[in-house]
Amino acid sequence: MISNVSLEKAANLLSSAESVLIFPHINPDGDALGSCAALCRALRNENKEAWILLEEDVPGYLSFMDIEFCTQNPGCIMEPDICICVDCSEERRFPDRAEKYNSGRTKMCIDHHATSGSFGDYYYIDGAEAATAQIIYKLLLEMGARIDRSIAASLYTGISTDTGNFQYSNTTPETHMIAAELMRTGMDHVSITVALYQNVSLRKVRLEARILDRMEIFAGGRAVISYVDSSMLQEVSAVMEDSESAIDTLRNIEGVEIAAFLKEKGDAVKVSMRAKSAGRVDEIAVKFGGGGHAKAAGCTLDMSVSEAADAIKKEIISYLEK
Amino acid sequence: MISNVSLEKAANLLSSAESVLIFPHINPDGDALGSCAALCRALRNENKEAWILLEEDVPGYLSFMDIEFCTQNPGCIMEPDICICVDCSEERRFPDRAEKYNSGRTKMCIDHHATSGSFGDYYYIDGAEAATAQIIYKLLLEMGARIDRSIAASLYTGISTDTGNFQYSNTTPETHMIAAELMRTGMDHVSITVALYQNVSLRKVRLEARILDRMEIFAGGRAVISYVDSSMLQEVSAVMEDSESAIDTLRNIEGVEIAAFLKEKGDAVKVSMRAKSAGRVDEIAVKFGGGGHAKAAGCTLDMSVSEAADAIKKEIISYLEK
Repeated sequence: MISNVSLEKAANLLSSAESVLIFPHINPDGDALGSCAALCRALRNENKEAWILLEEDVPGYLSFMDIEFCTQNPGCIMEPDICICVDCSEERRFPDRAEKYNSGRTKMCIDHHATSGSFGDYYYIDGAEAATAQIIYKLLLEMGARIDRSIAASLYTGISTDTGNFQYSNTTPETHMIAAELMRTGMDHVSITVALYQNVSLRKVRLEARILDRMEIFAGGRAVISYVDSSMLQEVSAVMEDSESAIDTLRNIEGVEIAAFLKEKGDAVKVSMRAKSAGRVDEIAVKFGGGGHAKAAGCTLDMSVSEAADAIKKEIISYLEK
Repeated sequence: MISNVSLEKAANLLSSAESVLIFPHINPDGDALGSCAALCRALRNENKEAWILLEEDVPGYLSFMDIEFCTQNPGCIMEPDICICVDCSEERRFPDRAEKYNSGRTKMCIDHHATSGSFGDYYYIDGAEAATAQIIYKLLLEMGARIDRSIAASLYTGISTDTGNFQYSNTTPETHMIAAELMRTGMDHVSITVALYQNVSLRKVRLEARILDRMEIFAGGRAVISYVDSSMLQEVSAVMEDSESAIDTLRNIEGVEIAAFLKEKGDAVKVSMRAKSAGRVDEIAVKFGGGGHAKAAGCTLDMSVSEAADAIKKEIISYLEK
């Protein structure tokens, strides 16, 4: 935990401000947007001037959220009392808004990502929290804000997306305690679940069916590999992004310990790898100049998809034989 | 709620017994087995004679559970002080064990399924509980039992499976409160998640890829239909059961309001349907002599798969045009 301010002091600062400009990281996910939306709504409920400043449109899959006060206009507040970045603690994660952030009379930062150092005038960064939404929840309690249904739904979305809906190892007893409190407001968790997990685009479903059709099981069923290339994308009018979750489906196959997924990108091949329980895929990725975590790692190979597949398979087999 | 006994009284009865035989329903799922395993382990911790009587092997996907005291031998306890059916309140759901159940000096029943009437000497049936595991949790607290990691893991498995891992509408604030308490024992929710949700059989993955490859989107993207027949099963060495979750994948497609899935069974076709938000599929199913709930219904048609698909599509289109 890196912090030079208590949540109580941070709450006091926000309560004393009249205008607050809120900065999520670029390409905001459910936790970034949910945390910002909850804070913004709570400040608005206190009749403060508050906006969320983005540098892109809200992603379509998050458009169900409380995004009424999202804007791409840096002039929405001319001289903010407070600029606060939320779920983000590095300037490079809001490149086109850094100047505006630095124009705040007071600069704050609330995050749960482990970061390299301090940031802004006041920072509260706790890597032990499963989601920034959990920190915002506690901050709002310190502010004495009423957690209404809209705020609860935003925080719940943040917690759900960053914990894989309570599945990941970052989920703690406190995560469930907060979820219980949020549900007590009467918020509708089913509509959030439907929006987040039951709205998979048709082209993504079609693409994944093709990826699964082409998968190869090897190493006696302990490993699986598949790929996506430009012709497969064309067949179903998909984009590369539509293949993002395929690696999880591959890893979820019974008996599979290591899954590899290859994406053709021009003349190179981007490789994603996952390990299920015992294995470490970072040890395989480093052999190709890549890296990552024990359970999720990757590398880029300058060769054809079939050459890359052969090379990766060979390395996985050798790793599993150890 | 149908009940002629308080949980306190039920706890006292169990605490006073020396031998307890526990009956889950046939084809036990995660909640049935988890609830039974937790109760059995708690009774064993009190040095009581306790067994779980099954009429089949534990399903492979639940073999990770605490099944040490599962048996198919009705003679494991000759004259049980208490026979208790758990997650089950109808004799027809344990047909081959009903005689043994009725041999208990005291007969009890704990369930969360809405049922037609009373059962046994003492029954506690609360349809408002998301999982029987939630009732067992409260029962164990009344018994003064220590919730150890093994018991917590069994209860967590029950709650997770019956709530779609906290996604279904039956999930309440209390569900999350109990999950928090179970996690506080130090139980490993990640290994349960991996066992339940990250171990999909290869043949199931291959079959689902084929089912998705054959799906047809219609009614302007608001409906989808697909099927499985014997030749598809043969191609990937799958059994009909492996197609169970395909209907959910179909329903989860963005824009789809109604999903239909057809299974060839001999000369007939079994149809499953799902509605996402506004629609009611039971109204469609009744047109074919079937039935079910608003969001999940089905029917059986005595025709070929392609004839059945045409008939179902026609009815769905007509329903959506209303």
